[in-house]
Amino acid sequence: MTDYENHLSRAGLALRESAIRRAGDLGVRTPGAVSFAPGYPDPEGFAWEEFAAIARDVLSGADPGVLQYGPTRGYPPFLSALPDVLADRGIRASAQESIVTTGSQQGLDLCARVFIDPGDVVLVELPTYTGGITAFSNAQARLVGVHQDDEGIDLQHLDVMLRRERGAGRRVAFVYVVPNFQNPSGLLMSRQRRTALLDWALRRDVLIVEDDPYGALYFEDVATAVETRPIKADDPDGRVVYLSSFSKTVAPGFRVAWITAAAPIVSKIEIAKQSADLCTGALDQRMVYEVVKRRVLDACLPRLRARYQAKRTAMEQALRRELADLVTWTTPKGGFFLWAAFPTGIDTDLLLDRAIRHGVVFVPGSAFDVERRGGHLARLSFSTPSIESIRTGVERLAAALREELAELASPARRAAR
Amino acid sequence: MTDYENHLSRAGLALRESAIRRAGDLGVRTPGAVSFAPGYPDPEGFAWEEFAAIARDVLSGADPGVLQYGPTRGYPPFLSALPDVLADRGIRASAQESIVTTGSQQGLDLCARVFIDPGDVVLVELPTYTGGITAFSNAQARLVGVHQDDEGIDLQHLDVMLRRERGAGRRVAFVYVVPNFQNPSGLLMSRQRRTALLDWALRRDVLIVEDDPYGALYFEDVATAVETRPIKADDPDGRVVYLSSFSKTVAPGFRVAWITAAAPIVSKIEIAKQSADLCTGALDQRMVYEVVKRRVLDACLPRLRARYQAKRTAMEQALRRELADLVTWTTPKGGFFLWAAFPTGIDTDLLLDRAIRHGVVFVPGSAFDVERRGGHLARLSFSTPSIESIRTGVERLAAALREELAELASPARRAAR
Repeated sequence: MTDYENHLSRAGLALRESAIRRAGDLGVRTPGAVSFAPGYPDPEGFAWEEFAAIARDVLSGADPGVLQYGPTRGYPPFLSALPDVLADRGIRASAQESIVTTGSQQGLDLCARVFIDPGDVVLVELPTYTGGITAFSNAQARLVGVHQDDEGIDLQHLDVMLRRERGAGRRVAFVYVVPNFQNPSGLLMSRQRRTALLDWALRRDVLIVEDDPYGALYFEDVATAVETRPIKADDPDGRVVYLSSFSKTVAPGFRVAWITAAAPIVSKIEIAKQSADLCTGALDQRMVYEVVKRRVLDACLPRLRARYQAKRTAMEQALRRELADLVTWTTPKGGFFLWAAFPTGIDTDLLLDRAIRHGVVFVPGSAFDVERRGGHLARLSFSTPSIESIRTGVERLAAALREELAELASPARRAAR
Repeated sequence: MTDYENHLSRAGLALRESAIRRAGDLGVRTPGAVSFAPGYPDPEGFAWEEFAAIARDVLSGADPGVLQYGPTRGYPPFLSALPDVLADRGIRASAQESIVTTGSQQGLDLCARVFIDPGDVVLVELPTYTGGITAFSNAQARLVGVHQDDEGIDLQHLDVMLRRERGAGRRVAFVYVVPNFQNPSGLLMSRQRRTALLDWALRRDVLIVEDDPYGALYFEDVATAVETRPIKADDPDGRVVYLSSFSKTVAPGFRVAWITAAAPIVSKIEIAKQSADLCTGALDQRMVYEVVKRRVLDACLPRLRARYQAKRTAMEQALRRELADLVTWTTPKGGFFLWAAFPTGIDTDLLLDRAIRHGVVFVPGSAFDVERRGGHLARLSFSTPSIESIRTGVERLAAALREELAELASPARRAAR
């Protein structure tokens, strides 16, 4: 039998599995479990009838391009429609400043390809999105964590880390931020912090990679569209590489996202994408383009905001009812995630095993922490389960947590661990 | 304004554009031109009605997974269907030995990620597929060309190159071959050569990456299914990483392909795919799965073989009529490509400019040659244009070639070049 280890590259040997995907798999493999693990949108919010009608139209055969290879940059009418989508967010960009990607995960991967050499530094928030961690660390980046406070990334700490890394002779590729309803913390970066971050990036000559999948999904009881204005909207200098996606608003099954950046960067990303997958699926792009053009998305968004807001509220109510004395969190103002802090002493990696036995799954905080800490934290996604399931899931989580605490309090058990 | 060169990685700066995509773009931008450039399937061969019926069924909303994120490995029923698809080709493989990829280009890219470190050697055929060249060279591989004869890769030369590279202390990642109707040469590797190549790989402990997008599209007037039996079919040792695709037989707009390899390799590729794009499009996978399950593909294949065979014949007839004295080629026994050898002294990179002025596009041989030679060769794709257009295109090519030869024969012009 072939010895495969011998045949793998060093990069191949070092490949790191996404902790979040692992937790997602756990949920799938536990029948009857309530899963707060994956950050999946609610399929009941998908515009099934409109999608079916669009599919019927585009698959008529009238336009053979619907199922053909297409330009690497993207389906041209779709690229032409993006400036209006961006303008709604305050971003002025021509069609030449965007490229379609096969989901935002590919966007992160393409950023890794064009900006990162092995050993280069990427500055990331503590905690940060797992998909960013895997994309950047598989490009052999050195990931350096920066603290966040209630307003977002801590600029003082950011500057300390930058100077430390540059002082050690390392190249800093970029700073990666998710300002709107961050995955996993749910945090909304303040307007002032965004401005200050951009000023800092200009002053220090650092690129910003801004990942914005959730911006359109703000909750109207506590937030407004103005607060979600991307950093990219105030970036005449081309300092920000902006990623967004239709996966959370239209449907992830289409794998359609995009990058907006300065034209020279987009040209490089286009070449990287040629070798990554030639082009994003033609049918998927037509579907999403028609969803945008026919204003299906515009019509859906208020309903989607209300849907996820109601789920957020249900989760908070259940947590207050079941675990008010034991778990703390900041109210999510949008997006899919509630970032729960369990009592000190709880290790959510261990708690997860017990939770699964109780029929509930979540993602431990360590999955989002490049320093592999975050031991007493966990990401609870409220986006996919029904309101009923959210209540059940929180009850099970409460039972698991109380059992875990009882065990921790027992000296014999503690000694055995 | 930001200085972007400063912010690109060395890998990003070195990224190499696909010559074939460039030629494809040229064709698109020349109105009225006949394009022999892109290796696109003929959309008139797509099963439009069946696709529309399947789309209606899968988009009913009954299965929310149709538009959701899915497992990185692929849609499970689709993975379960692959062993039968493979068995038809003589390959015994369990569902655990395959992974779905977003087109075979992603398959090549994932192989690059798990097998290639910068400076590692990939042994490739002369000429070879451009998408392989870009994927491997963007991973900073050293591409070493190996001659082919009428039966396929020259094993003596292969061994010389292997020993030379290993002798110089370099790691050889794998040998990359396209045994069935190679892109661009159209060559069908002989059965004997396949067996001998596998023996050699075992003896020398080299992995084989076998790329097989065209195997099902053999031409019944000159070839049989038996002759297309993949090398992987006779590989109990797990020495061969096998790539295939539904892009040429179902439709490329779905971006559904797969890799079959030993389970430990597939596991590594799965991790690499997590960071590349999380998962291949769920709708695309359902569509292709249903096409296979409902035996739409089986029903189509004889028609597709006949369709491309007729186009091949039309191109050969036109070439014999217009250019018998000037162009030579080996009859393609399947696939999409005719590899044309123009008279010595012709540089097909220069001829292309003139051809475009005459309204016909092709891909110069240099695009497929890692040694950037192949000056008098060109790939003519007969797959997309109609039979009528093939005739027109060859007439235009003949006019361009005769004009080029006349100019080359004129001493004054020759001196000026």
